[in-house]
Amino acid sequence: MLSLHDAIRPTTFLRSSKLCDYLGLDLTIATETFQHTGSFKFRAAYNLALNVPNDAILTASSGNFGQALAYACKLLGKECTVVMPVTSAQVKINAVRGYGATVDLVDTKVVGRNERVAQLAETMPDAYLASAYDDQHVIDGNSTLGDELSQKDFDVILVPVGGGGLISGTITGLCRNGNTAKVYGAEPLLGNDAARSLKAGKIIANETEPMTIADGARTISLGNLNWPIIQNGVADIIEVSDENIAEAVRLYFSLANLKSEPTGALTLGAILSRPEMFTAKKVCLIVSGGNVDARIYREILNSVS
Amino acid sequence: MLSLHDAIRPTTFLRSSKLCDYLGLDLTIATETFQHTGSFKFRAAYNLALNVPNDAILTASSGNFGQALAYACKLLGKECTVVMPVTSAQVKINAVRGYGATVDLVDTKVVGRNERVAQLAETMPDAYLASAYDDQHVIDGNSTLGDELSQKDFDVILVPVGGGGLISGTITGLCRNGNTAKVYGAEPLLGNDAARSLKAGKIIANETEPMTIADGARTISLGNLNWPIIQNGVADIIEVSDENIAEAVRLYFSLANLKSEPTGALTLGAILSRPEMFTAKKVCLIVSGGNVDARIYREILNSVS
Repeated sequence: MLSLHDAIRPTTFLRSSKLCDYLGLDLTIATETFQHTGSFKFRAAYNLALNVPNDAILTASSGNFGQALAYACKLLGKECTVVMPVTSAQVKINAVRGYGATVDLVDTKVVGRNERVAQLAETMPDAYLASAYDDQHVIDGNSTLGDELSQKDFDVILVPVGGGGLISGTITGLCRNGNTAKVYGAEPLLGNDAARSLKAGKIIANETEPMTIADGARTISLGNLNWPIIQNGVADIIEVSDENIAEAVRLYFSLANLKSEPTGALTLGAILSRPEMFTAKKVCLIVSGGNVDARIYREILNSVS
Repeated sequence: MLSLHDAIRPTTFLRSSKLCDYLGLDLTIATETFQHTGSFKFRAAYNLALNVPNDAILTASSGNFGQALAYACKLLGKECTVVMPVTSAQVKINAVRGYGATVDLVDTKVVGRNERVAQLAETMPDAYLASAYDDQHVIDGNSTLGDELSQKDFDVILVPVGGGGLISGTITGLCRNGNTAKVYGAEPLLGNDAARSLKAGKIIANETEPMTIADGARTISLGNLNWPIIQNGVADIIEVSDENIAEAVRLYFSLANLKSEPTGALTLGAILSRPEMFTAKKVCLIVSGGNVDARIYREILNSVS
């Protein structure tokens, strides 16, 4: 049984002179697209599966956390059940099943996802019910990325924000190593609850799941555990239009040979939205994951010449 | 002025459990897609520009070597001229110019590329005329990848083959470190001159430039300096259909989050062509580069579900 440190793949740092020249900025990419299961979520999922005493773990996820938890449970010999909407892409369902997890398909028109999880939890009283972001094991797992970044000398670090698990973990890791880089969140404009929360000084929720292209950030609100860490630790939250997210995916493809999912490209999208903020600074862009359907990726690439 | 060792980016090793599970094989990817200028060619180009005494360097390239040489010359303060067909993709012309080189556009219907290079060489008597593969500086530069691979414990290493610069360099690096991994070349079936040369025991040329999707391997023949190293050093050359090259590009996208150019995917294509050869072996796949036009990439992805 591997420790968390030994189980994760260290993040992959990339430099693209084309991208830096194009934007006139000093950019380093820290990409989690090659992390196990293709996103940073494996850091959280492995830490959670390693540390909870339960032999079975239950979660609701149509995306990266489901895959990551399924794979972590496979490595650790635990049972994993992932509740997914029947409308999930078949490749995502197959990926979770491929890692050996049980997929519980729920028709969200008939029964809500959380309701279905509650039903299942009753039939599995010994299972641990895992949130993808609002859990201390998740924050601690993601803090390993902060540890890695604290070994570098960045002025600014940009982090994608959905439920807040990655950015709260990153801040935690940086702080405990005494690293003083400024941390900015990058959030879809269409689901800008974190930016509104920061202004209001309390958690503000989106009214419905925001239909941004950044599907990993379609969250209703920040988690309760994540919020105070974010409130105290971020310099600001930058709101990014879907147009700039898509353009960032294209720039990664064309100038850095990097396949990013839209959520992963939020941070470069933030640079496109507010380039003047980052002049003459050593900037690190966290790319949170690379799992994007070919159909969506082709559509995004359509406007590359 | 950086040494070759300090100038290059070490290759990026990737493992994808999805890819390994899908093929039932133990595969490690050594990708040069994040090398400076997006392909292994920077190793060769920097070593050449560093070691020739000339202040000006001239080459013919519509692809990765032109970009790599342009950037190497920029770093080393040398003049660089790249002869490119007028039909080259504008993004490639712009990339070479973006690195500060002079682009000489030639209409190959009117004057051949080699003829144009000869004309230019007469007007630039002090320039070094650089081959993209048939040059000892190129082989020595590429041998650094062999050095890196020799630190690992692979049973088999697969290398894309066009003019033979990468594979002869890789073999050179492995041999001088006493590494005994078997080296296989992976070559487009549509331009299988290396496979035919190996059988014949002498260099056999393609009659015309082969129109394979692997545009980095559209070479007429192996280089004279590369040939004896290949003949003595390879276990075999595997011929790969364009269908398997395209499928390999798709598998990298879907299962490994890796953007590969078709030429880079030759080695995974070779696995698809001859999977039985690699069972129960520790296999390393060299991905030579990632520079592929969005239009071509979209077309290749079209058949991904």
